Amino acid sequence: MTHIRAATRSDVGLIHALIRELAEFEKLSGEVGATEELLKESLFGPDAVAEAIIAEDAGQSAGFALYFHSYSTFLARPGIYLEDLYVRPEFRGRGIGRALLAHVARTARERRCGRLEWSVLDWNKPAIGFYRSLGAVAMDEWTTFRLSGAGLEALADQARRAG
Amino acid sequence: MTHIRAATRSDVGLIHALIRELAEFEKLSGEVGATEELLKESLFGPDAVAEAIIAEDAGQSAGFALYFHSYSTFLARPGIYLEDLYVRPEFRGRGIGRALLAHVARTARERRCGRLEWSVLDWNKPAIGFYRSLGAVAMDEWTTFRLSGAGLEALADQARRAG
Repeated sequence: MTHIRAATRSDVGLIHALIRELAEFEKLSGEVGATEELLKESLFGPDAVAEAIIAEDAGQSAGFALYFHSYSTFLARPGIYLEDLYVRPEFRGRGIGRALLAHVARTARERRCGRLEWSVLDWNKPAIGFYRSLGAVAMDEWTTFRLSGAGLEALADQARRAG
Repeated sequence: MTHIRAATRSDVGLIHALIRELAEFEKLSGEVGATEELLKESLFGPDAVAEAIIAEDAGQSAGFALYFHSYSTFLARPGIYLEDLYVRPEFRGRGIGRALLAHVARTARERRCGRLEWSVLDWNKPAIGFYRSLGAVAMDEWTTFRLSGAGLEALADQARRAG
């Protein structure tokens, strides 16, 4: 029996472990710079920017979802961006991913959000099939660009102080 | 001479007009549901979720950028997601887009954000070339999925009340 609940401060260690497992699955372990301290600040600090929910199955931690509010100019409404959705391998095939997603969708509806969005690695075909089965639309005609590190610094340096 | 400034409540009408111009440029006019009232709430209400800056050139409104805070689990830090970047056609080629982007990059740095991200339509080759010249990386291996309207409702209905 799956139970979905909001994460609390005492889950920070668990969420940190789940993030590391997810990164391993995504073959992105090298990119994880999260610490429990930073996570606690982001999820439960005075300027918290994200929220998390935990899935439990037969009393065991089975997975999690982590999300934040986005915004659509065209809708002039907030949305929800699902940053992470993860179910531990031994708990897959039991509808836990769907239960987590449905929980986030319900939160979006309760908050009058216009849309729910998330990103998936192109090689993750099972996930893509699942998302399509829910009626989700692939934003195939859009590409996301990212600027970080030295590139972000260099661009920030170009801003005029008076700006 | 380009000047970048934070938008104020009195800019809501201007921002609304610029959003409509941008949608026309993106061939997405049919998707604009924004009203000035909704925009005012999103940008300046008690639960404001987004921020905007305005570019002025020789005293005229030349363009705008609109952004919100994102979050990276792997970094455990906030980022900035640039929802809109628009320069009116008659003001292009003067570095105004770069000035707007640089201003947002400086804001990201000031707030200790780990990254700045945005999306571009694949046919907008001039923009893509410009972004690459800044050192931005295309997240080609990721696809964004979107659930809205009836699909979002149907998924929300699947959430268990007890959840």
